[in-house]
Order: sequence, then structure tokens, then C-alpha cells
Amino acid sequence: MASRTPPSTADPAARTSASARAAGEKPRRRLSVDERREQLIAVALELFSRRPPEEVSIDDIAAAAGASRPLVYHYFPGKQALYEESLRRAGQELSARFEEPLEGPLSERLHRVMGRYLDFVQSHGPGFAALLRGGSVSASADTTAVIDEVRRAAQAQILTHLAIPAPSIGLRLTVRAWIANAEITSLEWLADRSVPLEELQLHLVQEFVAALTLTAAREPALATELASFLADEHPDGPTGRLVRDLAGLFAVPGIVEAVTALAAGGSDDGAAQADGAAQAAGAATE
Amino acid sequence: MASRTPPSTADPAARTSASARAAGEKPRRRLSVDERREQLIAVALELFSRRPPEEVSIDDIAAAAGASRPLVYHYFPGKQALYEESLRRAGQELSARFEEPLEGPLSERLHRVMGRYLDFVQSHGPGFAALLRGGSVSASADTTAVIDEVRRAAQAQILTHLAIPAPSIGLRLTVRAWIANAEITSLEWLADRSVPLEELQLHLVQEFVAALTLTAAREPALATELASFLADEHPDGPTGRLVRDLAGLFAVPGIVEAVTALAAGGSDDGAAQADGAAQAAGAATE
Repeated sequence: MASRTPPSTADPAARTSASARAAGEKPRRRLSVDERREQLIAVALELFSRRPPEEVSIDDIAAAAGASRPLVYHYFPGKQALYEESLRRAGQELSARFEEPLEGPLSERLHRVMGRYLDFVQSHGPGFAALLRGGSVSASADTTAVIDEVRRAAQAQILTHLAIPAPSIGLRLTVRAWIANAEITSLEWLADRSVPLEELQLHLVQEFVAALTLTAAREPALATELASFLADEHPDGPTGRLVRDLAGLFAVPGIVEAVTALAAGGSDDGAAQADGAAQAAGAATE
Repeated sequence: MASRTPPSTADPAARTSASARAAGEKPRRRLSVDERREQLIAVALELFSRRPPEEVSIDDIAAAAGASRPLVYHYFPGKQALYEESLRRAGQELSARFEEPLEGPLSERLHRVMGRYLDFVQSHGPGFAALLRGGSVSASADTTAVIDEVRRAAQAQILTHLAIPAPSIGLRLTVRAWIANAEITSLEWLADRSVPLEELQLHLVQEFVAALTLTAAREPALATELASFLADEHPDGPTGRLVRDLAGLFAVPGIVEAVTALAAGGSDDGAAQADGAAQAAGAATE
């Protein structure tokens, strides 16, 4: 376990509660050692989500928790430890959001996951940005490890949903690169919030479908998997909308001619492949 | 300018040269203050390229430069300053590699740039990795600024080549996300070098073309630009090969049927768009 063991002595605030009760005062609910520790982490996470770590002090955390500075130090050796622990919790929370039942069209599963992911990004904005932008004074081998763990969890989830027994290096790289895309896209979005979050959510999912298709175009084994994945998709889902958006490009003057020339004009097997494309798109209107 | 002014006192090693010559010794070529400073930066860059900054000491740099430890400190206050300066130089060198004449098919320009970029990645491998992975003890606001500057230079170059007067937020985001893709792809490649570099180079370029196409499918103004960009492409270039690879997918059992259903089965304008696609792919075999 990555979390620290609570200090063996009890919460100084908790220790006073017995004497308070003995004095006949209305018993104010005191936090247990574990509760206090969790409360401090929750408060720290809240503050670190709203501001970069440089701008959060132990005093801020103590004030927000209704605790004294020494009490915070009683639980955590310093700000960095509290930062890393709250980051670990945030990482666990984020990874948990990637969990999704293995049911229904793949793009719709990913669409739901991205909804939860972007909701996290929105609610943890500045802290998320400070962390991923790097160069923060609070960045360390530990914080990098937490981020990498979240990325690994995301990659593992996606590969689980793809359900391909032995994913190729190319496919793994596609998934990893798409995760980087999702990160940078959310970071850029946080900077100006210029696009509705729902649009970002749809685009990221469609970019995943496109990246998967591109990888399948290079890897025959994956192409078969792509066929069965596409067969499960709904016309009104992210993939269906993507297919129609791309088909719409063919109505733009010049695109048909250019693609035709590229498809037919290459090496010897170009013509046969162009034939396949024609057959396919022809079938699309039957 | 970001670089430091050389110290006003001369290089201690340079100062001894006059007395050496006076003593009738064969005049060994001494470095001027500027030359010595440049030499130290070059040596540091070489070492920081081969190892993460934690594993390079001032003694290593002094030894590799044939200089004494005090001499290195005479020029730089410490390892961090030397690291940041050599990183700045590396950033300038990398940004210079993005420069490419505004001539010929777009994908071939990008292909040449990516060749130079990947060559840089290969020759500065471990240092590049340590820097971009983050969490290095030598990461700072300054090193982050250098990396961001290189990313901005890359984005600016790409937008210059696209030559679109007012690039949309969506297009800028596409370019930025693709740069993140290129970074993470090179990092993953450095970890196992499992794929020939030429393959990576081609894939990254094709992923850019695909990302641009996807963005154009959402943005009518960009679709017109896409048409003229495609018209300039050569069948044997990265885009031509991509078109034929994608056309090849239609020969995979099930893909035609799935895409047909998705194209035709959606909202009211789906059928018209599928018509456009059919017309296009039909034309591809005429």
C-alpha cells in the first residue's frame, strides 16, 4: 500500500473529547484518528484541485479543515507528503472512473468513460493542469509514478474492452498516443474552455475510432477485429456519426478527384484496393 | 536573450597561455572565454543527452571537457544552470529542424521534418526521455518553458505549412494533440526501439493526415482546404499510401456491411452523405 500508517498517538483533538464529556459539556462529535486523516486528505485534495500546489500552504489546509497547523503536522510530515497522498487518492478516483461494463458498442462505452473523465477534469481543473504541465516544484518521482499509474490503468481498461488476446506493439502505441491526446486536449480545454465539453467528449471518442481504424489498415489481424467491432456499433452512436461526417467530405468539390487519383495511381495493388473501396461505398447506398 | 552573459574575468586556463608562450613552449591552442563556454555547453549537452540529469555530475562535465571543476564553476553557478543552458541549445537545435521550405506535397514536407525530428530523438535519447517523462529533480519552470517553446515552434511551423489564414480552435487543438502523439510515440519507441524508425516516421505523418481529415469532416471551411491539400499529394507519398491502406480495409469481410449500415442508418441526411461516399469511391475505379 502506498498510504502512510497513521501516527500511533491519537489525534490531539480527539484526546480532549473525553475530558470535555467528563465536564458535562454537550458532546461535540470528535473525529477518530482515521477520520481526521481522511478529512485532511479530502480537504487537501479539494485545495490542490483548485490551485497549483505552490499556492496551497499547510495553513490553508489547516484553516479549511478547521484544524490547527500542529495538528496537520501531527498527521503529515509536510505539504509534499499531503500533496502526494491526495494525488494518490485523486489517481485512484480517476482510475475508478475508467471502469465500465463490457457491454454494448465499444464507442458508446468509451463515450461514457470520457464523460466521467472530463467531469473529473472539470472539477479538478487547476490542480490537474498544474500536475500534468510539469515543472511544478511539487512534481517528484512519486507524483510522476501516480500519473503513470493512471495512464497504465487507462490503457489496460481500453485493451480489456478491445478484448484482443495479444495486442500488437502498434495497437498498444495507438492506445497510449490516444491517451496523450486526451490529456493534452483536456489541458488545452481547461486553459480557455472554448468548446462545449460534450463536443470534446464526442471528438475524443471519434479520434479513438479513427486511430484504431488506421492501425487496423496496417495490421491485417486487427482488421478482422475492427470488422466485428464496427458490426456492433449503432448508427446514432459516435462511430455512426463519424462515418457520416467522413462520407460528407466526399461532397466537397475536389476531394473525390484527389482521393481517386491517390487510390489508383500508386503501386500495383493500388487498383485492386481502390476496387474494394468502390465496392464498399457502392454497397453503402444499395 | 535567455543565455547568461559570460563572466567578466577571463578563462583562468586562457590566462595561463601568455606565460606559456613567454616560456618558449610550443603554443598550445587555448580557448577564448566564449569558446570555452560553448565547449562546456556542448560537452554538457552530450552528457545530458546520454544520461538523465541526476546521473551527470559537474565532475563528469569537467572531465569530459578536459577542464577542472573550478573552471566549470567559473562559467556556471552549478549543474542546474548548465543543464538549463544546454537544454535551451537543444531546444533551439530541435526547433531549427522543423524549418522546411513551403514547397511540394504537405505530407512529404512533414515526412522530411519527422525524419530530422526522429534523428534528434535517437541521438539525444535518454536525455530527451528524462526531460519529457517529467518528475526529474532537474525539471523546473525553466525546463518546462524550454519544452513548451519547442512545442509552440512545432505548432507554428505546421500552421505555417497549412497556410490557413485563421486556423480554428479545433484545428489548433488537432495540431497540438498530434504533437503530443509524436512526443509520446518517440518516448515509447526509445524505451524498446521495437519498430524501425522509418515506420514510425511514416505512421506519424499518416496520423497527422488522418487527424486533419477528421477535423475537416467537422469544419466545412477546412474541408475546402483539405481538397486542395489532397490535390497536391503524390500517389507514392504518405497520403497516397494511407488512402490505399484504408481502401484495403474494405476487402476485409464484414467491414463493408458494417460501414454501410452506419452510413445509411442514421439521421435524415445520412443517406445523402452515403451517396456522396459511393459516388467518390465509384469514381476511384473509373
